[in-house]
Amino acid sequence: MSIQDFVHETSGWMCDEGPHSDIVISTRIRLARNLIEHPFPMLASEHQADDIIERVRDAIETESFAEAGGGRFEMIHLDDISELDLHTLEEKYLISSTLVDHATRGAVAIREDELVSIMINEEDHLRLQVLMPGLQLGEAWATANRIDDLLEARLNYAFDERYGYLTACPTNVGTGIRASIMLHLPALVATGQINRVLSALGQVGLVVRGIHGEGTEAVGNLFQLSNQITLGQPEEEVIQSLESVAQKMIEHEIQARNYLLQESREDIEDRVARSFGILAYARRLSAKETMQRLSDLRLGIDLGVIKGISKNILKELMVMSQPAFLQKKSGVSLAPNERDWRRAELVRDKLQSEAGHI
Amino acid sequence: MSIQDFVHETSGWMCDEGPHSDIVISTRIRLARNLIEHPFPMLASEHQADDIIERVRDAIETESFAEAGGGRFEMIHLDDISELDLHTLEEKYLISSTLVDHATRGAVAIREDELVSIMINEEDHLRLQVLMPGLQLGEAWATANRIDDLLEARLNYAFDERYGYLTACPTNVGTGIRASIMLHLPALVATGQINRVLSALGQVGLVVRGIHGEGTEAVGNLFQLSNQITLGQPEEEVIQSLESVAQKMIEHEIQARNYLLQESREDIEDRVARSFGILAYARRLSAKETMQRLSDLRLGIDLGVIKGISKNILKELMVMSQPAFLQKKSGVSLAPNERDWRRAELVRDKLQSEAGHI
Repeated sequence: MSIQDFVHETSGWMCDEGPHSDIVISTRIRLARNLIEHPFPMLASEHQADDIIERVRDAIETESFAEAGGGRFEMIHLDDISELDLHTLEEKYLISSTLVDHATRGAVAIREDELVSIMINEEDHLRLQVLMPGLQLGEAWATANRIDDLLEARLNYAFDERYGYLTACPTNVGTGIRASIMLHLPALVATGQINRVLSALGQVGLVVRGIHGEGTEAVGNLFQLSNQITLGQPEEEVIQSLESVAQKMIEHEIQARNYLLQESREDIEDRVARSFGILAYARRLSAKETMQRLSDLRLGIDLGVIKGISKNILKELMVMSQPAFLQKKSGVSLAPNERDWRRAELVRDKLQSEAGHI
Repeated sequence: MSIQDFVHETSGWMCDEGPHSDIVISTRIRLARNLIEHPFPMLASEHQADDIIERVRDAIETESFAEAGGGRFEMIHLDDISELDLHTLEEKYLISSTLVDHATRGAVAIREDELVSIMINEEDHLRLQVLMPGLQLGEAWATANRIDDLLEARLNYAFDERYGYLTACPTNVGTGIRASIMLHLPALVATGQINRVLSALGQVGLVVRGIHGEGTEAVGNLFQLSNQITLGQPEEEVIQSLESVAQKMIEHEIQARNYLLQESREDIEDRVARSFGILAYARRLSAKETMQRLSDLRLGIDLGVIKGISKNILKELMVMSQPAFLQKKSGVSLAPNERDWRRAELVRDKLQSEAGHI
């Protein structure tokens, strides 16, 4: 296994469906951990940062780790790979922009199935991430917890009896857990209910973001929902609370979709069909338009207006139509205008190979 | 032959191509004629109007008329056919809106091939019309002239040695000829040159109109160009002058298309491809959007961007997507919103049956 395996193809979470995948695109659990031996990455020397990578490598590259259900990981030093490969990993959500832009001796250990990655020397020494398709908070948490236990048995985590896991940023202290789900809410947006629904979430300790993380706009009717509190609340409670909010959001979105079908079926069918036609034929597509039209397409598939196209086309193309992926695919560096051209080509090929119809 | 033959299918000028049909959609020659026996239609009694119809019928339903190259005509009394059939004939340009809306005892004699029609009791007793695909001013004039001679030998035309053919409206007195061509000028519109070009035409005695005649907007980049002068200029000169303007317009449009291909090929390809996608998939299309997108589609075919689709799709759908034709096809009366739905269905079926590709 090498870096090339990770930058060419799609990940498991992108190709497979999951529970409630009509509305919940993906589930992510992230745990922040640090080792007692060294200062937080911000203050660590290169030598110390390298030592952390070695300690993690020693922990995960043991037979006992793999046999105990940890799985097999590939360790990638970010300094060893090209800028393009870096951004490709970022576009697949295997590493964060913080790791790409700010890490000293950044590294990532990626599990064969790409459902688990461990970022090293990001804001914390370790950022363990589990990414699964659909709504799978319980499963993702069980996986993260299992890997975390295996790591904890082999590493000296910085842990305080009173505060819990110590982290570089005080907002993560305690459980160090960030559980999040990505929701596709086109009907709540179309019916104008989205702002009311989202503002209620702040009151129950949840944060809403666009698909590219903090401070980004919600394009393609995609919203990322995550817990804010890491202190004084056990992991299971965090998961349970997000799960029940997710169930409510699913209900709301289903109601809104039914409303749209009853009250303005023709509008929706026309919008969805036009987006299909444009995605299937346009010669130039900006990243933003692509997301908006893919959102329409996905809604059309969910509502049964469009047939013969995999539901995962939204997730797949959402990742594969990003700049680094496009350049990776075409083998050359592309100016923004050329990217729009290649993006349209990719989308067209994909839609035509799926032979969808309306 | 009956009215049903004329209201169900497309006419010859719509299906066939003609010379320069990349740019010249169709050629039309119209001759205004009146009989000495009766007052102009505005002042004629019903009895007199009926007599005119009978005189024309007697003239064209003779074997000698057909054998002399006049062809076989079907006489249709407008009072005998449904409102829907009336509008269908109008949408096929076989009769005028004036005949539909204002005629007392209006009638039309349509030749089997639908290239020739003779409106009776419109503004003048007879309005002889020849409609051909592409730029065929010479051929259309020859046909009109032949039929006119055959009619003149059998009817008493109101003709003055000094003024020529007498007509209800003084602007037609003289030759009574109106020669016109319908031009598709998307590149002159796209490059912003159209207004300069059109304003020059007024100075050489030509009038520009939209596709539905006087005072209508130019939708779908279609412009109808016709002579203004009927007095003091022989028919051949009128034809020759329009022919040379047509040749110049063709040159200008070709230059503008080449310019577009050189300077903004990507813009044009994307626009054309999007219009194809929308026409092929939209569920709802207004009459105006249909014309605009068909214009793009036709340009795409002309430029070789779109393959496998007949050039005549613009002409055919331009006629068949109009309200009466749509209602005729669906067999029921349709509200405007339903028409948009049926229009999209018609366009979709047509595009899919042609199996075009980009």
